[in-house]
Amino acid sequence: MVSGVGTGRGSSTRDVLYGAAAALFVERGYEDTTMADIAARAGTSRRTAFNHFPSKGDIPMLWTRRMADVAVEVITRSAGDPAPERIRAYFRLISGLVEAEPELTRQMMLGWTAATGPIRYESQLLADLRPLLREGQERGEVAATVDVAEAARTLSDVYMGVVFRWVRDPDALGSFQEVAGGGIDLVLSAVRA
Amino acid sequence: MVSGVGTGRGSSTRDVLYGAAAALFVERGYEDTTMADIAARAGTSRRTAFNHFPSKGDIPMLWTRRMADVAVEVITRSAGDPAPERIRAYFRLISGLVEAEPELTRQMMLGWTAATGPIRYESQLLADLRPLLREGQERGEVAATVDVAEAARTLSDVYMGVVFRWVRDPDALGSFQEVAGGGIDLVLSAVRA
Repeated sequence: MVSGVGTGRGSSTRDVLYGAAAALFVERGYEDTTMADIAARAGTSRRTAFNHFPSKGDIPMLWTRRMADVAVEVITRSAGDPAPERIRAYFRLISGLVEAEPELTRQMMLGWTAATGPIRYESQLLADLRPLLREGQERGEVAATVDVAEAARTLSDVYMGVVFRWVRDPDALGSFQEVAGGGIDLVLSAVRA
Repeated sequence: MVSGVGTGRGSSTRDVLYGAAAALFVERGYEDTTMADIAARAGTSRRTAFNHFPSKGDIPMLWTRRMADVAVEVITRSAGDPAPERIRAYFRLISGLVEAEPELTRQMMLGWTAATGPIRYESQLLADLRPLLREGQERGEVAATVDVAEAARTLSDVYMGVVFRWVRDPDALGSFQEVAGGGIDLVLSAVRA
């Protein structure tokens, strides 16, 4: 079973529903999966499923949040490293999660986009990157002239662009890690002190 | 009547359909406009409408292409200027078009995103930016070490991120031109020779 990120033993009903959705998205695609299918697979009523996820588009939203949560946990442990290195590690980690389950990523991204996620939600990345950059600026690793909010937006947008591109055509892009890393490094080269 | 970009006198059936769609999207929203509504407003049969736009999502796609077409025309006339200046002018021009009809932009972007445009289509910007950057590199205005394809992707992705954000909440963002320009300048600072 495809579990996505962060599901496991001792799962709550929400986790079970999420895991069922993730498995179904991979099996038959996001678009061809209904909330009723998800409830049936999870062994809950449709009402319970809708209580947890009022709209199918909320499931990819949880997927993005879980990925960012895992990444930020790892980042918290590297507090001593220079900010640009921590930012690179942060994206490397998310990229690893994205690449580890390509079909899950593809379906979740299709669902998130169809639910106009790029417009409806600000990226989770932003909330993680701002404090990293701010700390880096305080320690002199990020140039004092850099607008931290702007740099965080730029890094986040560049990353999202690579994810869209990779979902569209994984083969054309080559290594996801490499392409994502290249874009992030280009922006970091403008941000470093 | 809201015409969008590039419609006008001597219009083809396609242009009339596009103009009718643009007007309806602004009046009642992209989601609440059907292809039948568009055909009726344009005075064509539904069949004609579907011949020109097999899916409603093809209309926002044409909107993005028309904007990029206008911008590249202007850019062609500034061939003598340094590449980074031409790139800034290119984005300034598109930003002006985006800002000139905020509700049209909002509805077209919602439609484009719901049709999974960010995944299905590579940005039109990319095709315009690559030759600009390449020329700039040949003339020594863009650093020789810069990967032109990567820089084009990064500029395009940063710009799309600003557009998504602005459509989400125009007031929170402040001046679109300023925010877009800030992100573009940050990337250009990493690209300049």
